[in-house]
Parts: sequence; structure tokens; C-alpha cells
Amino acid sequence: MATPIQAEASNITAPTQFVATGVETYAYRRFGRGSGGAPPLLCLQHFTGTLDFWDPAVTDPIARGREVILFENAGVGRSSGEVPDTMAGMAAHVLAFIAALGLTHVDVLGFSLGGVLAQVIALERPSLVRKMLLVGTAPEGGEDIMHLEKPELKRILDDPQLQGFQRLVKLFFTASESSQAAGQAYAQRLAARRQDRESVSGPKVAGAQLAAFRAWERGDGGERFTKLREIRQPCLVVNGVLDQMISVRNSYALAEHLPRAMLLTYPDAGHGSLFQYHDSFVRQASLFLGETPR
Amino acid sequence: MATPIQAEASNITAPTQFVATGVETYAYRRFGRGSGGAPPLLCLQHFTGTLDFWDPAVTDPIARGREVILFENAGVGRSSGEVPDTMAGMAAHVLAFIAALGLTHVDVLGFSLGGVLAQVIALERPSLVRKMLLVGTAPEGGEDIMHLEKPELKRILDDPQLQGFQRLVKLFFTASESSQAAGQAYAQRLAARRQDRESVSGPKVAGAQLAAFRAWERGDGGERFTKLREIRQPCLVVNGVLDQMISVRNSYALAEHLPRAMLLTYPDAGHGSLFQYHDSFVRQASLFLGETPR
Repeated sequence: MATPIQAEASNITAPTQFVATGVETYAYRRFGRGSGGAPPLLCLQHFTGTLDFWDPAVTDPIARGREVILFENAGVGRSSGEVPDTMAGMAAHVLAFIAALGLTHVDVLGFSLGGVLAQVIALERPSLVRKMLLVGTAPEGGEDIMHLEKPELKRILDDPQLQGFQRLVKLFFTASESSQAAGQAYAQRLAARRQDRESVSGPKVAGAQLAAFRAWERGDGGERFTKLREIRQPCLVVNGVLDQMISVRNSYALAEHLPRAMLLTYPDAGHGSLFQYHDSFVRQASLFLGETPR
Repeated sequence: MATPIQAEASNITAPTQFVATGVETYAYRRFGRGSGGAPPLLCLQHFTGTLDFWDPAVTDPIARGREVILFENAGVGRSSGEVPDTMAGMAAHVLAFIAALGLTHVDVLGFSLGGVLAQVIALERPSLVRKMLLVGTAPEGGEDIMHLEKPELKRILDDPQLQGFQRLVKLFFTASESSQAAGQAYAQRLAARRQDRESVSGPKVAGAQLAAFRAWERGDGGERFTKLREIRQPCLVVNGVLDQMISVRNSYALAEHLPRAMLLTYPDAGHGSLFQYHDSFVRQASLFLGETPR
């Protein structure tokens, strides 16, 4: 299974590519070095995030050991179509994209919303997914998931002084000096890509994705977390202990109910723990992906 | 600070040594290779455990990179004196031992009871402790700590068929086939030391240590977990998600309140997660101890 290797293995410079399925055209970036038959790492993005919101401090070092594919779901950035208002709908686009690229195996890095989609895909098409990194995310029927109306989040979202990446620095990092400094470094890294950028998501994207989150939190009416038992892939669950967007309790539930999940939490960190502790996260991700499955 | 290097860097063969303080004589083992000024790793043992209960699959690989010191508290094995019935009393013996060896800095691996003592020592003598591994342990005022009267534990403890290490295999590992198999491998490793063994702890040791656990669980009457904020050392908190002896919820509380703690949990693992996943644990411990402190 020969995979093309991009010359520029960085999310600062990798060109945005497009693949058409006949129904939709998806934007994506693909870079890094395939090694020894390891499947590519498919990265599924957070609420309203585009390809431009993947931190090069995370994607680029990982891409030195394996191929990295960043996916833009339908209706986001330059991908065509409408944003589905269900997780199943968004997961169907991920599957269509994987098929369009002709991939038969992937590892998945699902962050937040992307971590939900990773779970849906692993349940629906288990043979496709080898291992999963589930970061800042939640199981179906979880608690305290993306309640943007909470005072601590609303205050940030309503602040007219906070534009662009600065809003993310407040949302994804804690109030401590060191976390905010890490947030500013993250914002600078995201701004380093100067050309070929995606359009920023508007209220339509946010509304549909939030509707999907609300249904996910409500659950399917069955006993909570039982479906997680069916996900047999090795998983690494990661979160910051002070995540205000998706409480760390959801990561505990994932680690307690997924049969093969390790959990890693970071101190003084929020939703963006993988960006704050990018060195540690990359090391842990590389260890996890490189290990022989137990 | 020259430290003696034992020829036999294994808990299967390292001789038991003794150091006298004028008050007590403590049994200990010391082996491994000091490297580049890293402090020795002081290992503090679990409820009723002796020097013989440190798994060579954990201690020996760690000892290839640094010096490892296993400590036997007062009244346990061949250490003289009475077993204190308070955590403060047991921690005082640890401090007396460290002083008797002339050590000014240590890293600490505290497992279960030993993890409690590590916290007490870090609060009392912060300059002594560089980093701490807190495995299967609990903060003061935690919950579901060593309730041996719980049916799932009592059943094991009252079973006359379960003697010696076989009881530990049931207590420290889960009921799954793979966890029990890992438990049997652990029991074999513990049995590999044939000579110079410690005496097994009796009911007097258990009674005093349990009294200390009960007081620790009750807490000091102040707001729960506030003292943890004062522990500034980098910590790695580790547990199995199915720990019946000290619930994993205590590890969550440690990771949420210790200002510099990472948390790592293992699936399908109980109190003995570090022995079940010894390869991963050793790798994580070495990474953590070798990193430049954040």
C-alpha cells in the first residue's frame, strides 16, 4: 500500500488538497512519512475548527514518524455540503472520505467533537480503525459537554475584545499565567500558516455541531456507556483536569468503560491540554501508536 | 555525593542491609546505578508488604538507570520497633531512615500505604523530595480506602484456599483471564528470591496500618484536598481503573488537586496496575523521572 509522501511535512506549509466522492468534495491535508506499514493518523477536528486549527507543534513531530491526514468535515472550511446536526451524519462523511482516499486502516486522533466521531466510526466500522487517541472528548450520555451557556464560557464567548485565536486561548487554556503563556505560543503557531488558509466557521456550523453535541449528551436512552465495551481498539484518552468545555469526568468514564483505554491527564490544563503539553503529548502519542497492541 | 553501587541490581538477589539510628534498626535494600546526579528512588511499600513484595519486573529495570532503595518500615520484616498506627508515625520512620543514610534528595515511589507516606513527607520536608510516583494511593479525606470488610475483598481474605502470593493475585489483579495470568507471572517473580527473605507480616502489622488508613480516610476535619495544593513536586499518579482496595476516584482527586500531577490509569487493572503493566509502568516512570521538571 504505497502512500504518497509530501515534501513539506508541516501543517504550516502542507497544501490543502481536495478529494471528490461524487456527492461531496472534502478539503484535507496529508503530510509526513509513512513508516513500516503503520497506518496514517487521521485527525478529526474540534467544534467549529478547520484544518488551520491543528497545532503544528502536535502534527509536525508526529508526522516525522508516520503519515498524518487532517480532515475537514462537510460544510466546514472549503469542504462542500451541509454540516450535519448529528454525530452519525458527521461520521458518515469521515467514512466517505476514508473510502475516497482508498484507505483500509487508520489510526485516529479525535479531539473533542472529533473524538466523538472516532467512537462512532470505531463502533460502525471496527476493522477500519487500529488505535485511537481520544482527547478532550466524551462518551454518549456523558455530562457537562459543551454547555456554552455556562457563565465561565459565556463570559469568554461574549467578550468583544477576544477575537480569533485569542478567544481560543481563553477557552482552551486555564487562567494561570503559565497556561495562558502556553496559549499565546499556541496562537502564534496557528498564525504561522500565512497562505492557503480555510475560511473561519460561522454560526451555521456552530449551531449544527452544538445540536449534535446536545443529542450525544442526552444519550440513546439505553444504559450509559455499555456501547463503549464494544470498542476493542487500544485507546489513549487524554484531557486537562480543568477542562471547562468537556469535563474531565467524561474522560474518566471513557477510561473506565473502554476495555483497552489508558488515561492520561495533565495538571493546570483545560480543553487544549494536547497543545499546552505538546512535547509530552507527542511523546505519549508516539509511544502509544508505536507499541505492539496488547 | 558518592553512592555505593551494588553489583547485583535486582530485588531477587540484592542483600538485605541494615542501618541503625540509635532508636531503631531498619532493613532495606539498595541497588542499581546512580546516573548523572539523579537522586535515588526510594520505594515505600503497601499495606503489610515487606521488601520481598517489590516486583523485580518494576524495580530492576528502573535500577538500570538510577539507584533504587527499598525501605522496610518499623515493625515490619526485620526492621525493629513497633508499627505506628498513624501515617505521621510511619512517615517519621521514613525520615529517620533517610537521615541515617545521609541522603539529602530522593525521588519517591509510594505504592498504596507508601503513597500516603510520600505525601506526608513531601508536606513535612518539601526540600527532601524531588519527584513522586504515587501509585494506587489516596489523599487525606479520600473515599473507599482499604475497606477490607467489603464483600468483594472479604471473600478473598476469608478464602482458606488462598495463601501467600495467591491471595495478592486475587486482591491486586482483576478477575479477567489476562489480568489473572499477569498476576500469576507476578507471583512467580516474587517467589524468585530464594534466600535472605523477610518474615511475613502478621495481624499486629495489619491492625496498626489499618487504623492509620481509617484516620487518613476520615481526614483532618478541614476542607478536603486543600493540603495537596502545597505539594509542589512533579507527581505521576498511577492506578488501575478497577482498584477494589483504594478506588481510582482517589487518584482522580490527587490529579485534580496536586498542582503538578499527571495521571495515568490502566484498563482491566486493579490495585497492582504497576505490576500488571510493568513494561509500560517502567517506561512511564523512567520518562517521568528523567524529564526536566516543568
